[in-house]
Amino acid sequence: MDALLDKLKWDANGLVPVIVQDVENGQVLVMAYTNREALEKTIETGKVWTYSRSRGRVALKGESSAHFQHVKEVRTDCDQDAVLIKVIQDGGACHEGYRSCFFRKYEAGASDWNVVEKPVFDPKSVYKK
Amino acid sequence: MDALLDKLKWDANGLVPVIVQDVENGQVLVMAYTNREALEKTIETGKVWTYSRSRGRVALKGESSAHFQHVKEVRTDCDQDAVLIKVIQDGGACHEGYRSCFFRKYEAGASDWNVVEKPVFDPKSVYKK
Repeated sequence: MDALLDKLKWDANGLVPVIVQDVENGQVLVMAYTNREALEKTIETGKVWTYSRSRGRVALKGESSAHFQHVKEVRTDCDQDAVLIKVIQDGGACHEGYRSCFFRKYEAGASDWNVVEKPVFDPKSVYKK
Repeated sequence: MDALLDKLKWDANGLVPVIVQDVENGQVLVMAYTNREALEKTIETGKVWTYSRSRGRVALKGESSAHFQHVKEVRTDCDQDAVLIKVIQDGGACHEGYRSCFFRKYEAGASDWNVVEKPVFDPKSVYKK
């Protein structure tokens, strides 16, 4: 694994962007960042880990919600500075209750981005304090 | 359009990451960066423009290859700090001749990322000097 991770062009903060995609229907679920540790854990555990810039630490996707992302494929791009992970998604990927974080769409003339998806879970009951 | 672009969380360099996806088969084609000018041009012209960090300027995707990306949908995510554009792709999105830039796959035990796609055009004939 080390040789392959060495090939990636980690940025000045040791990160690369990562796109997580539903392997079954192609839906783009979330864009996040990963570092070497998070990508190692992703490959080793078969579940997506990311580096959370807001929390300043590596985090298992789904650690609070139990909506895990089960890794089916890990790819990189021509420049090797981005990663694409194809997954089976439990529940929803978005902390706002949607399957995908990309639930807002541009529409000409609208005063705000239009919500074009329906929630698949209730964040209030999933993220209990 | 201004009101919607104002909602996006442009980073310190005025950029947000953009994922370009084939609207027909869901294939993730490329991950790039856009700035306000590039996204305005994308929406106005119906073709994807990006901000090229290496060239330090806004660029029409396909300006050299004529492999344009025709915009069908523009989305943003929950945090409004990433953009997803669904397109009809002419030719291939990757300057190395592949339809998608994500043509390399992780395989356990391999000594390098495995090329798992076939080129769809010859870069030498498309990018003539």
